[in-house]
Amino acid sequence: MAKPSFTVAELASLLGAETVTSDCLIEGIGTLQSATEKQLSFLHNGRYQQQLQASRAGAVLVRAEHRNDVASIALVVADPYIAYARATALFCQQQTTEVAAISLSAEISTSAVLADNVTIGAHAVIGDDVKIASGVTIGANSVIGPGSVIGENTRIAANVTLYSEVRVGALCVIHSGAVIGADGFGFANDDGQWLKIHQLGGVRIGDRVEIGAGTTIDRGALDDTIIGDGVILDNQIQVGHNVNIGDNTAIVACTAIAGSTRIGKNCTIAGAVGIAGHLTIADGTHITAMTLVSKSILQPGVYSSGTAMEPHQQWKRNVVRFRQLDELSRRVKCLEHIVKQHTEGQPE
Amino acid sequence: MAKPSFTVAELASLLGAETVTSDCLIEGIGTLQSATEKQLSFLHNGRYQQQLQASRAGAVLVRAEHRNDVASIALVVADPYIAYARATALFCQQQTTEVAAISLSAEISTSAVLADNVTIGAHAVIGDDVKIASGVTIGANSVIGPGSVIGENTRIAANVTLYSEVRVGALCVIHSGAVIGADGFGFANDDGQWLKIHQLGGVRIGDRVEIGAGTTIDRGALDDTIIGDGVILDNQIQVGHNVNIGDNTAIVACTAIAGSTRIGKNCTIAGAVGIAGHLTIADGTHITAMTLVSKSILQPGVYSSGTAMEPHQQWKRNVVRFRQLDELSRRVKCLEHIVKQHTEGQPE
Amino acid sequence: MAKPSFTVAELASLLGAETVTSDCLIEGIGTLQSATEKQLSFLHNGRYQQQLQASRAGAVLVRAEHRNDVASIALVVADPYIAYARATALFCQQQTTEVAAISLSAEISTSAVLADNVTIGAHAVIGDDVKIASGVTIGANSVIGPGSVIGENTRIAANVTLYSEVRVGALCVIHSGAVIGADGFGFANDDGQWLKIHQLGGVRIGDRVEIGAGTTIDRGALDDTIIGDGVILDNQIQVGHNVNIGDNTAIVACTAIAGSTRIGKNCTIAGAVGIAGHLTIADGTHITAMTLVSKSILQPGVYSSGTAMEPHQQWKRNVVRFRQLDELSRRVKCLEHIVKQHTEGQPE
Repeated sequence: MAKPSFTVAELASLLGAETVTSDCLIEGIGTLQSATEKQLSFLHNGRYQQQLQASRAGAVLVRAEHRNDVASIALVVADPYIAYARATALFCQQQTTEVAAISLSAEISTSAVLADNVTIGAHAVIGDDVKIASGVTIGANSVIGPGSVIGENTRIAANVTLYSEVRVGALCVIHSGAVIGADGFGFANDDGQWLKIHQLGGVRIGDRVEIGAGTTIDRGALDDTIIGDGVILDNQIQVGHNVNIGDNTAIVACTAIAGSTRIGKNCTIAGAVGIAGHLTIADGTHITAMTLVSKSILQPGVYSSGTAMEPHQQWKRNVVRFRQLDELSRRVKCLEHIVKQHTEGQPE
Repeated sequence: MAKPSFTVAELASLLGAETVTSDCLIEGIGTLQSATEKQLSFLHNGRYQQQLQASRAGAVLVRAEHRNDVASIALVVADPYIAYARATALFCQQQTTEVAAISLSAEISTSAVLADNVTIGAHAVIGDDVKIASGVTIGANSVIGPGSVIGENTRIAANVTLYSEVRVGALCVIHSGAVIGADGFGFANDDGQWLKIHQLGGVRIGDRVEIGAGTTIDRGALDDTIIGDGVILDNQIQVGHNVNIGDNTAIVACTAIAGSTRIGKNCTIAGAVGIAGHLTIADGTHITAMTLVSKSILQPGVYSSGTAMEPHQQWKRNVVRFRQLDELSRRVKCLEHIVKQHTEGQPE
Repeated sequence: MAKPSFTVAELASLLGAETVTSDCLIEGIGTLQSATEKQLSFLHNGRYQQQLQASRAGAVLVRAEHRNDVASIALVVADPYIAYARATALFCQQQTTEVAAISLSAEISTSAVLADNVTIGAHAVIGDDVKIASGVTIGANSVIGPGSVIGENTRIAANVTLYSEVRVGALCVIHSGAVIGADGFGFANDDGQWLKIHQLGGVRIGDRVEIGAGTTIDRGALDDTIIGDGVILDNQIQVGHNVNIGDNTAIVACTAIAGSTRIGKNCTIAGAVGIAGHLTIADGTHITAMTLVSKSILQPGVYSSGTAMEPHQQWKRNVVRFRQLDELSRRVKCLEHIVKQHTEGQPE
């Protein structure tokens, strides 16, 4: 497979940088420290400025102010990180160019409707009445349940499971091990035994959504679970039934969201956060790692819970004190009372 | 596929409600707010009582006391939530009615024994000496390891993995991505290197157990890992080797249970809880979300750990103080001592 | 399938114990409490010493000092737990002996290179240019992406996914549901929308690595994600892009490690720990369960965060006080100031 390559001048044009005339060939991307003469690099964070001089990179994406610090060729752009992101697409796109093809070993229902230019991997299973739009890729051994709909140019990796009636928009990426549309955790307690509440809703996923490896999104109980446009979900996230995640919200790995919670737009939720059910989280809210969110957040801002890491022996003593904290507070209040009584009217 | 439908009178009879005579047709279930004239709804929580008048639902499951508040037809039952759960089965059961069939692309060992009325999906793999009882469904691309046994009417979704010697009872549901019977995490430290302890036990799962998407249940080291009857496990739960979970215990998503811990019957364990190994948890214990359980719980009750969410800047200050908490406690004690000495014998 | 069995004398020889002459047949391993006359047991922990007398085990691995406490035959070794681990291999190895065979239903690229003695399960999919060394087993329905390389005698279970360009060393074990090489969570925020940074690096995994069920290891952004030799990873662990885990480090289930963090050698990281990105963790560091690691650890030692479980009502009061902790500290400081002023110069 031919590796993609571009001249520096072509890259400048493709990435919207100021014009340069170099026809040096660039074959990949590297960090300032690791890049070779045949690689492009970028300066995103001022902290790494001193690496510019020493970098062997063939060309470097920089802001105008660093134009003269580049040892090789400076590609001057407004935002080097955005330009770097665009460059990764150039060097990736061609690597993954495949001819659309439907594997002979895939099992596709006769009632499924496939557009042109669809790729379906070996042993994939496509259920009844599934609709697959143009440019879609379904990976090997993935299973698409009956009645599901996949939008244009969405890429589903290997070993993904979509249950029935899951609607995925256009230009999404769903990684391996993801499970979308499994039953929400709904049970009624019938005299000590759990009576299953069959989950009759579906899942609706917007456009340009990325869903990480091993992430699970449950179907709704009656209405649908909804993931907005441009949402990005990292690996091993759990999204309960009837959750609604607003457009362009980003959620980091291992976060769990309980049922019926509504998360606003443009939120960033860090890793291993737990969010209780039936809450509302305002647009633009930021939640730090491992926070437990047990109440709604109506004012955007940054929220946290937990304690900070410390040496274990010291932590053990503090943990014991935490369990006495209410009592300690009362003792301080009592002291304040006594001290106030004894100092009032006395000279300080 | 024909959608299931019932007259209101039929539903009353099927759900054990007081007899009504309406032959209005009901085709689904909705919330009080969303239900149409062709849908059934229910009043579970008194909080939603004021929605009864405005609901357009064709019929509503209510307790006798709300009989006259229903705008359309009241279906009077002892427990509307239980009746709702039963109704979901009516509207689901028929949707999912399939003719039992064994896919030609499934790979089934000649030594496997399949009862009548078994459904096996495309590309599923059934190992040597597996026994599958009547009414069982195995989803597409699932793998059932050698010697495993699946009880009557159990439904295994697509992309599930059972290793060898896993025994699953009757009427269970196992969701996609679940892995049952992988090796427990057992290693002996042999002079700095980890020597694998091969896991020779199996897994035994009772009847009416639900196992969520991506949940992993490890096989035992020597004896079996055991899940009792009626246990319900949500998504992405981790159950270590030789764990024993008592009947009818419910565990919410992303909880992790370390090896050899015994959890009692009728417990409810919320999401993202961590339970250390070799502990005993009493019957009827309740644990709140994201709690770390590092000691046995011998008295049933409600248990918690962690701190509550707050604005990040305020949290940072409190977190610093937490690391000084032991010292703060000593300072308060010291103050109490001084104050006591100076106030004794003095008038208050 | 014949169960493996050994005489006690053979076991003594195979496990490096002092020679004994018994030809009693041993067919398995049990705990001191559960072992039958036909099973081997072991005394690892002095706490269980009193069980030695009552044990019905046919032979017991013990240290020399407990030689005379064994009711049946003592197998005297330097470290009974290590000897037990070796014994599990004896009783497991033969149970899992399979004839190497490549399933006719596996789909193997014509450009893949397979050594002799390779086992490939039903419906497995092997991509272009994959290299599989001698003695490797690939489970049913697993997918190995283009350009990946699997070292000698590595065992990959069923339903595992390796993306492209994943290098796995020799003698590794990868459990079901694991996903290796999915895209790292890299996005640039382009005026409120997330622009994907295509992940151009790969994953390199050393020799003798164990990877648990449902664990996800992302590919690097530019450079590779690296797992050292002898690393053991439990189930449902998340390893972000460009993480580097040092040799012989052990990580328990459900821990999440954010991108570009370097974890040293010989660390033990307990379950459900969260480790932020771009940190350095020193060799030999130990982290307790559910700790949030938000700073680098440069001194080896034991580290913790969080609070300890307590009854919920008491916890609620302490949690409220935690949010007032900074204020409480100020009040104590104020009290100290007042008390100091009023007691200075006074007799105590």
